[in-house]
Amino acid sequence: MSKFWSPLVNDLVPYVPGEQPKMANLVKLNTNENPFGPSPKVIEAIQAELNDNLRLYPDPEGESLCQAIADYHNLKPEQVFLGNGSDEVLAHIFYGLFQHGEPILFPDITYSFYPVYCGLYRIEGQKVPLTDGFEINPEDYKQPNGGVIFPNPNAPTGRYLGLEHVEEILQANPDRVVVVDEAYVDFGGESAITLVDRYPNLLVSQTLSKARSLAGLRVGFAVGHADLIEALNRVKNSFNSYPLDRLALAGAKAAYEDDAWFRKCCEGVISERKRVTVALEGLGFEVLPSKANFIFARHKETAGEVLAKRLREQGIIVRHFNKPRISDFLRITIGTPEQNDALISGLRSL
Amino acid sequence: MSKFWSPLVNDLVPYVPGEQPKMANLVKLNTNENPFGPSPKVIEAIQAELNDNLRLYPDPEGESLCQAIADYHNLKPEQVFLGNGSDEVLAHIFYGLFQHGEPILFPDITYSFYPVYCGLYRIEGQKVPLTDGFEINPEDYKQPNGGVIFPNPNAPTGRYLGLEHVEEILQANPDRVVVVDEAYVDFGGESAITLVDRYPNLLVSQTLSKARSLAGLRVGFAVGHADLIEALNRVKNSFNSYPLDRLALAGAKAAYEDDAWFRKCCEGVISERKRVTVALEGLGFEVLPSKANFIFARHKETAGEVLAKRLREQGIIVRHFNKPRISDFLRITIGTPEQNDALISGLRSL
Repeated sequence: MSKFWSPLVNDLVPYVPGEQPKMANLVKLNTNENPFGPSPKVIEAIQAELNDNLRLYPDPEGESLCQAIADYHNLKPEQVFLGNGSDEVLAHIFYGLFQHGEPILFPDITYSFYPVYCGLYRIEGQKVPLTDGFEINPEDYKQPNGGVIFPNPNAPTGRYLGLEHVEEILQANPDRVVVVDEAYVDFGGESAITLVDRYPNLLVSQTLSKARSLAGLRVGFAVGHADLIEALNRVKNSFNSYPLDRLALAGAKAAYEDDAWFRKCCEGVISERKRVTVALEGLGFEVLPSKANFIFARHKETAGEVLAKRLREQGIIVRHFNKPRISDFLRITIGTPEQNDALISGLRSL
Repeated sequence: MSKFWSPLVNDLVPYVPGEQPKMANLVKLNTNENPFGPSPKVIEAIQAELNDNLRLYPDPEGESLCQAIADYHNLKPEQVFLGNGSDEVLAHIFYGLFQHGEPILFPDITYSFYPVYCGLYRIEGQKVPLTDGFEINPEDYKQPNGGVIFPNPNAPTGRYLGLEHVEEILQANPDRVVVVDEAYVDFGGESAITLVDRYPNLLVSQTLSKARSLAGLRVGFAVGHADLIEALNRVKNSFNSYPLDRLALAGAKAAYEDDAWFRKCCEGVISERKRVTVALEGLGFEVLPSKANFIFARHKETAGEVLAKRLREQGIIVRHFNKPRISDFLRITIGTPEQNDALISGLRSL
């Protein structure tokens, strides 16, 4: 370790994002991007901002986007916190709301950034095992903690926890913040945003990277009681006043103004997810029930690592996690009908 | 304080950015933006990225932009660290390189985000008084510390410290990182980037918000020894893998490919700065020698606060800091010739 490093830097185990290969003509089903592009109205809105005004700072509070999100979800703008992708939002949540000297609870199989945030801020994290069927059991979250976080639907499993069970976790933890990370909720789940006004300990984070087809624009947000949002704004304004650029603010706002496009894309993903699931089951896969824009599947005979490698040789990229309990699985993003066809024939030929 | 907040949140004193008023037709000389727009090639490059690929994540490492900045400054790409504006870069510097149990030294009159970062990460900060002429005295930085940071030119004074004095500070602190924050260096200063290969303890941060006319796009960077850059990448990849969106990466790269535009804008600002300085001196102002795109000036008779208020009544916005030693001063961004004319006649009429 360099003598110049803050000592904690040596212990960091950074997050490893899914590969962004630079080769063309790949069937890229490894990072859960939306197979459909963003609304043409998003492109138009960015276009309209693409001028000399780029010399000027953006609105540090992103008021206009906060208002659009608040209107969409029937909230007040002071209940919305914006960030540079939901990853930045989550980082500020860990810093601003999860430092209480007790461990943060999250599933053992989940978004692998959570333990990374714990490492960054030296917060204790405690992995709570999913059931044998890879489900979250609310009972397991009724123990002392400094906060709770889980994705719903969970990643990489795709499994969704009904809102009645989310409420059970909220009710069991009235003195701790419970974060429901809804990156994938629009592909068939029901959002906990409707619970926000009833639970002052609930924060719901969402992203525009998945259902809104804007992974390349970096916009995420959290909604909750204004008290929780104030904590996040204090941290954000002590870190970086302007995390969202002028183009991202404009594009994100437009995404909320074209609901028809959004619904069409989500329906397209859902119907393809059904088709891919049936096809894979026919090829000898067990596919976990998914409410996300990906499926998590294992073959009855062939190991996930082997399958991932063979698909790659055909130019099809899926994600494999070499981790306990899930090393047999592949996480496969739902692509366009053509990409899914390529996946299915690729697997058939193995 | 809400019971849900991490206790430290209550003590945070967030940074207050210069106002971004929403009224039209203002002469906005309060946030040091460039009066000239970005290069048309920047607009074209963003245009070319404005398509369905926004559904895809950006390159998390921004390799192509790192390479462009490295080429421009005759460095290797592994010597470049990218961030969402230099504010984010500085936050990661404080976290990853400034936690050594000793105070961080910075001028008493300087960029007011430095003490905010100290508060955020509970790092002790020690203000080192500027001289009576508002200059940095290298002798004052020869004392035990956990790191040193100063802008060069300094803000809000505009005063520049010659590289021979920067070297004095570097040589006096071989075991600590010295950060030269060069947000304003292109308006007449000489960059310390040329020293990077000789001083493993030197980090130079720059932004595209000022001289490159891209405050609205949120891109900054630091350059230094690859060891220092590795620490920053470890922190960044434990915080947010993709802080720069696809459009920002493309636009920033194009900004480095149009050097003629950049030089023309800087020269325009420098020549207007001379003109405004002479005019204000003629109106009874003392103007500190500036190498930045702003001047720091006080009137011999009228208080800064009063002047700022009267200018505002005329639709001219400048920045006033109600702080010890500088409450008489105004920080005035150099605008277009027309804006500067408005400022000068505005002051003349008071």
